[in-house]
Amino acid sequence: MTSKRCAACKQLRRKCPSNCIFLPYFPPNNPQRFSYVHRIYGASNVGKMLQQVGEHQRGDVADSLYYEAYWRIKDPVYGCVGIITSLHEEIYHVQSQLPKVQAQIDLLYQNGIYTFDP
Amino acid sequence: MTSKRCAACKQLRRKCPSNCIFLPYFPPNNPQRFSYVHRIYGASNVGKMLQQVGEHQRGDVADSLYYEAYWRIKDPVYGCVGIITSLHEEIYHVQSQLPKVQAQIDLLYQNGIYTFDP
Repeated sequence: MTSKRCAACKQLRRKCPSNCIFLPYFPPNNPQRFSYVHRIYGASNVGKMLQQVGEHQRGDVADSLYYEAYWRIKDPVYGCVGIITSLHEEIYHVQSQLPKVQAQIDLLYQNGIYTFDP
Repeated sequence: MTSKRCAACKQLRRKCPSNCIFLPYFPPNNPQRFSYVHRIYGASNVGKMLQQVGEHQRGDVADSLYYEAYWRIKDPVYGCVGIITSLHEEIYHVQSQLPKVQAQIDLLYQNGIYTFDP
């Protein structure tokens, strides 16, 4: 594994050192993963963002950067903020249904009470 | 307005041309807005992302990039993907409540039917 260059070093056409910051998170068998974050953030910024957190959190950094880059390429205007907006709308829609359901339940309870306590 | 440099050109210490791609979206009175996207994406990538969409969509691009950069700085591990995860959890929680509420409504309807049609 260490003798093969990671996806980042392969794309940047450089030697891949054994302590390469990209190696564990951008394996050579998934070149698209690095290609996406490279296109949106640039390799140097991705490296910085990986380096500024502890080693145990770098996998999550790489995953979330890839997710954001993927959505920015898919939706160049809103990126993954478009997903946040639509999830907020979904929650708003469900929340606006709740008072109606509650009113329906209250009415049914009220009918029950009238019946059993005339 | 055109005689003043935009936040990007001010921070990059260069002249701000009248057709500057950053000028309408990174005004000089909000230096933090450019500073955040510069730190996460780099000025050149931000410029490219603005240029690749129509002029009427560039405000939304700048807003969504700023939003994502803000959250990446606030949460260096998950960025705004952390928000997406928590919104998904909120929706999952509400959705798991729905069958219980539906069962409660069904039971109340059933009781009503038993009462009015013995």
